Amino acid sequence: MLPFSLNEFKSRLEQTKKSMLEKGIEVLLITNPANMNYLSGYNGWSFYVDQMLVVIIDEDQPIWIGRKQDANGAKATTWLYDENIIPYPEDHIHSTVKHPMDFVAQILTQIGQSNRRIGLEMESYYFSALSYERLKRNLPNAQFIDASLLVNYVRLVKSEREIEYMKRAAKIVEIGMSTAVSSIQEGVRECDVAANIYKDLISGTEEYGGDYPAIVPLLPAGENTSTPHITWSDKKYKNNEMVIIELAGCHQRYHSPLARTVSIGQPTKRAQDISKIVVEGLNAALDKVKPGVICDDLERAWNQVITKHGIIKESRLGYSMGLNYPPDWGEHTASIRKGDMTVLKPNMTFHLIPGLWFDDYGIEISESFRVTENGCEVLANFPRELIIKEETNISVSSS
Amino acid sequence: MLPFSLNEFKSRLEQTKKSMLEKGIEVLLITNPANMNYLSGYNGWSFYVDQMLVVIIDEDQPIWIGRKQDANGAKATTWLYDENIIPYPEDHIHSTVKHPMDFVAQILTQIGQSNRRIGLEMESYYFSALSYERLKRNLPNAQFIDASLLVNYVRLVKSEREIEYMKRAAKIVEIGMSTAVSSIQEGVRECDVAANIYKDLISGTEEYGGDYPAIVPLLPAGENTSTPHITWSDKKYKNNEMVIIELAGCHQRYHSPLARTVSIGQPTKRAQDISKIVVEGLNAALDKVKPGVICDDLERAWNQVITKHGIIKESRLGYSMGLNYPPDWGEHTASIRKGDMTVLKPNMTFHLIPGLWFDDYGIEISESFRVTENGCEVLANFPRELIIKEETNISVSSS
Repeated sequence: MLPFSLNEFKSRLEQTKKSMLEKGIEVLLITNPANMNYLSGYNGWSFYVDQMLVVIIDEDQPIWIGRKQDANGAKATTWLYDENIIPYPEDHIHSTVKHPMDFVAQILTQIGQSNRRIGLEMESYYFSALSYERLKRNLPNAQFIDASLLVNYVRLVKSEREIEYMKRAAKIVEIGMSTAVSSIQEGVRECDVAANIYKDLISGTEEYGGDYPAIVPLLPAGENTSTPHITWSDKKYKNNEMVIIELAGCHQRYHSPLARTVSIGQPTKRAQDISKIVVEGLNAALDKVKPGVICDDLERAWNQVITKHGIIKESRLGYSMGLNYPPDWGEHTASIRKGDMTVLKPNMTFHLIPGLWFDDYGIEISESFRVTENGCEVLANFPRELIIKEETNISVSSS
Repeated sequence: MLPFSLNEFKSRLEQTKKSMLEKGIEVLLITNPANMNYLSGYNGWSFYVDQMLVVIIDEDQPIWIGRKQDANGAKATTWLYDENIIPYPEDHIHSTVKHPMDFVAQILTQIGQSNRRIGLEMESYYFSALSYERLKRNLPNAQFIDASLLVNYVRLVKSEREIEYMKRAAKIVEIGMSTAVSSIQEGVRECDVAANIYKDLISGTEEYGGDYPAIVPLLPAGENTSTPHITWSDKKYKNNEMVIIELAGCHQRYHSPLARTVSIGQPTKRAQDISKIVVEGLNAALDKVKPGVICDDLERAWNQVITKHGIIKESRLGYSMGLNYPPDWGEHTASIRKGDMTVLKPNMTFHLIPGLWFDDYGIEISESFRVTENGCEVLANFPRELIIKEETNISVSSS
């Protein structure tokens, strides 16, 4: 049933405790659903209400605290003993009177943890400012320490099994991207392309199914290619329009993102030139990848290429990614950017997406890769270029 | 281009300012993406980084502050003047050195708002505990007030145009639910059913496309029907398995959720009996809906029915919903539960989902409705019953 062996979960927990010890944290309250999943296996769309995993430095098993309705889900998806699944009552849900963090504080007090050094994920989407205030008020003798990315950093180097899931996700993204490219043509609605992509991303392959990606397919078209996070509409594609496709395959919550840019009909000379620069820079960065190199080195390799062509890019080139839940598949740890001194190690995994956005259009061509023993392995296999949909591909029924 | 008239946006802003005045708030920092969209039109998958809309009580227009990469998206999707779109530099993204809230504090100081009474959405998914700490540190002369649901409450009563979008979403959910029911059968993988559902939800109808729902299709099967927030796997459905389907159509970010339960083959007598009780209770609650009635009254009507049958339900029956982004389509304001004194008004919209979950199975049959001038209008048209997939529906190729 569990997607990883019990040993793997226990080893993750040990590494987490090691990091807690180094930071002087005795109790860690984990609210990031990816971190909850990583340590316990917990998997459900329940992160829209307060829930957490409590790791206590001198206890063998974490404790899951969540909504009563979700306790059966915790029993079904985690390796935890049933007595470590602690539900809070349903009247705490979206109530102005009862707050789940009052319940959490009460439990921590009951089990003798209220006066310890407690780590909090201060930058988790699913730990609100109000939750923080409530915990502080209810646990006046605790000492709180920011532990935002503690587990995220443990997640940085993937196991063989995690890599296997990401490779499956890469197979799925290849299918999704092929479908995107073949669906995009003049006269077709953006939403119908998104629908086709979704069908393939979720269905997956015959051997393994797809899971929901942490970000929806991003499909800016025309002028909107100048901004990367616009989703689809029901407008129809026009001839000579550029379309950016950024999407990820997902399997067991592990992602392989991929971006390509499509030109419907012949692209401008400028778009072709920029695409070639992006690919040249992307290749230069990929060529640089190996253990011991730092993220800053990859940015430098990219930057040398684009500077030569008179182009400046302010935003980062990429980021560590893998296991995640909405709203982001990135891990918020290492970034491929100037000044990031993260040392690459085998089985770190990144999405390298050196997009270039101008005032009225943009180009994105990306790859996800893992660091190998002596270089890098690109996860998906898809032509690394500006994709041109020729007139002949245009359906005769469109006007 | 905009999904609502300029007048509608301005009227929403006026109502927000009225509520700010009542609460003594001079500056409101809005980080809930649904609230940002509601007041400005802003629409993009960019809420995984810090962004906000600043409403100043004595200024005509809100200010959008977000990542540089997303500024073009803000120009493309909002009614705001370009000078009210203020981007922060890209080196603030997932950085341990520079925090977007430092930038926000600097802007608020520059425009003379640093010593005012500032409302914060303390329970927004996209305003972290760390963001709160940063703002407090950088704006020592400001007075902070919790304004978590201020705009959510303005959203409670929908306009005609909003209702129109929700009715379109209801048409889409009818299609998605039909597809779910026809796809579910013995031997079919859960992920393939989810894929079919997605295709229809995103494609929408010929007249209007579908948008991504704020929650993925929830498809617990077998024993997992005892817990409502389990997503699909790549397991195959078995004969005599129960499957819960909870999903929403979405159009222009407006939702119409709907839940049904399917039995593959003949259900147990107990499941049939419970389903009838759920429908009877659901109907009793719907019959009660009209302006002037309170949410507590609906719960009472439901509760009378189930008590008669010896059943107790702790969790709430439903909640206000409409415009939203992941991870929830609920508005977190009015709940249909014991003790909720919200007075119903025309064009309030709710998802009434009186699910019953037991130790080893559960039943969900729900409706979304709007309050009318003298009663209620159910948004989607779908048989309100336990759906039985007869043996004859089972494909011969399955074993």
